[in-house]
Amino acid sequence: MRTIDWHDDHIVAIDQTLLPHTMTMVELRTVDEVIDAVQRLVIRGAPALGVAGALGTAIAALDAQRRALGAGHVIREAERVAAARPTAVNLAWGVQRCLDAIDGGAEAMVRAAVSLVQEDIDTNRELSRRGAELVRSLVDGPPGIHTHCNAGGLACVEWGTALGIVRALHEAGGVREVFVDETRPLLQGARLTAFELAAMGIAHRVVVDGAGASVIARGMIDVVIVGADRVAANGDVVNKIGTYPLALAAHRAGVPFVVAAPESTIDRATPDGSAVHIELRDPSEVVSMSSPGQPATGTLVHGTPATITPAGTGAWNPAFDVTPWDLVTALVTEARVVRLAAGQSI
Amino acid sequence: MRTIDWHDDHIVAIDQTLLPHTMTMVELRTVDEVIDAVQRLVIRGAPALGVAGALGTAIAALDAQRRALGAGHVIREAERVAAARPTAVNLAWGVQRCLDAIDGGAEAMVRAAVSLVQEDIDTNRELSRRGAELVRSLVDGPPGIHTHCNAGGLACVEWGTALGIVRALHEAGGVREVFVDETRPLLQGARLTAFELAAMGIAHRVVVDGAGASVIARGMIDVVIVGADRVAANGDVVNKIGTYPLALAAHRAGVPFVVAAPESTIDRATPDGSAVHIELRDPSEVVSMSSPGQPATGTLVHGTPATITPAGTGAWNPAFDVTPWDLVTALVTEARVVRLAAGQSI
Repeated sequence: MRTIDWHDDHIVAIDQTLLPHTMTMVELRTVDEVIDAVQRLVIRGAPALGVAGALGTAIAALDAQRRALGAGHVIREAERVAAARPTAVNLAWGVQRCLDAIDGGAEAMVRAAVSLVQEDIDTNRELSRRGAELVRSLVDGPPGIHTHCNAGGLACVEWGTALGIVRALHEAGGVREVFVDETRPLLQGARLTAFELAAMGIAHRVVVDGAGASVIARGMIDVVIVGADRVAANGDVVNKIGTYPLALAAHRAGVPFVVAAPESTIDRATPDGSAVHIELRDPSEVVSMSSPGQPATGTLVHGTPATITPAGTGAWNPAFDVTPWDLVTALVTEARVVRLAAGQSI
Repeated sequence: MRTIDWHDDHIVAIDQTLLPHTMTMVELRTVDEVIDAVQRLVIRGAPALGVAGALGTAIAALDAQRRALGAGHVIREAERVAAARPTAVNLAWGVQRCLDAIDGGAEAMVRAAVSLVQEDIDTNRELSRRGAELVRSLVDGPPGIHTHCNAGGLACVEWGTALGIVRALHEAGGVREVFVDETRPLLQGARLTAFELAAMGIAHRVVVDGAGASVIARGMIDVVIVGADRVAANGDVVNKIGTYPLALAAHRAGVPFVVAAPESTIDRATPDGSAVHIELRDPSEVVSMSSPGQPATGTLVHGTPATITPAGTGAWNPAFDVTPWDLVTALVTEARVVRLAAGQSI
């Protein structure tokens, strides 16, 4: 099943806010619906956001064609899609890939956007092949792996990046166990990565975000593999909040820290991590908890959050952090392995 | 209000599982009730556990006196109290402080135990005075402070350790802002530390555990101050899970990392952190979420947890981690400041 796909004239996507308890598909037929889905994390994950950006721009093109509006309208709508979330560079990249076909009209733009769906699958399979080869060169026997958030099929079209490497290793001979941080505030690790690992039949355990460093320090895993939302020109990696402390722990423990991301995640226009706009999300995600979808047990009801903190206590809620390049053993893309900590350049 | 106190022949304590929304006192009249309260974290925090250990042993002594049982019974009951939780050394220390008076009979044991209540307050006030002096020597102006979990009045009798230093700084001229990690799985930071900071009128924000390293790396605070559950002979610090990654981030950023703990938390019999028994708690604390007390809003009901993860996904749930001594700028006790990273010995 594809996380995001194109049907006739609209997007069909898994509503990731409802997993793991409910698998619901949503149909997105307008630019506003696409922007809302991206901002509420119905669709999330850098590669999937790239596809959403392209397909959302295709929707704008079809709408302009129907209403006999010109290229200026399409470009303005595309800019709104690209700005829906600021940190993952793939979103704007996907929008641009569709806009590049604007001279061919709406049909050409749809074709360009839809071609990204298969391209994403192919890219991530090739990335995963390279990543699995790298891990086998670093670790003897079935590896224990630590990951964070979700860089799996749910973050892409159907084949993941970090979790794509895990899947490739699993298919080629085995993975000992995967530990995944729950990834507060929105629990993408506990909800989505656990869901994918369970579906693949890979042994796994969830830990709270504060315990990831202990998993690494106590010798329970052989390699850390995470995705990325943006890689700066100097190799600094922007990824889900909580990635940086894992990199620090891996560095201290001498455990390889591998970042898996397609070439489209590399942003040569941004010199380093300090120049990246880190999205600050609503404090309510931290100070209250709502249910992940329709829970199997208990009385949590989706959309009815319970307050954790005392009344009046606020939160600071950055969605991403920056891991300096010198802590990254290797960046794996569909084209190459860049050993950043060893001094190789992007 | 005292977190834990002695009334006539029983313990009165705040039920910390219900904060911040509900302030309920519990009365503990038997050893079994004390052990249950300690294991369920109704009473938690290393210094408060020391007092609970002593007062719980006093309850055993009074029970033996009423039933005309001998010292052997008292000692066996005391051993049960001391073993209720394995990691915080203060629990067994408090039990021993009461047992030391066994030759004087039950009344002498009660007196010995009750004396720890005031001693804890005095100890932590002196520790906090020293700690505030240290912070003023390290930081110009009102400091920004990062802390983890709860090492406040709720972790002690009424005056905290790490948060006691914050309180002393606040009373002596000001604290710019405190950031506190929510501290999953049981949210002692978001629930208890925020509650205390709000009550003291200190500006504060909660962050998810994965964001603590970013607070430090982005220059938002001047010093990290945490408590400890056990300090090994070499200076390794055992504290709430999620402390170690903060120490790594502080080290990388050149931010002082201060540990506040009474002398009773130092365990000279344990050579280093690797020798400490790290309590593994029930995976259900991670894979499901229950309400913190009676929430102000929402439909979370205490004791009715909602499952986060897919069915069948497990968790690894260590309650503590180990911060190596070389990452600790200073250990502050009621008696001294030990600059561990600079090579000073305990």
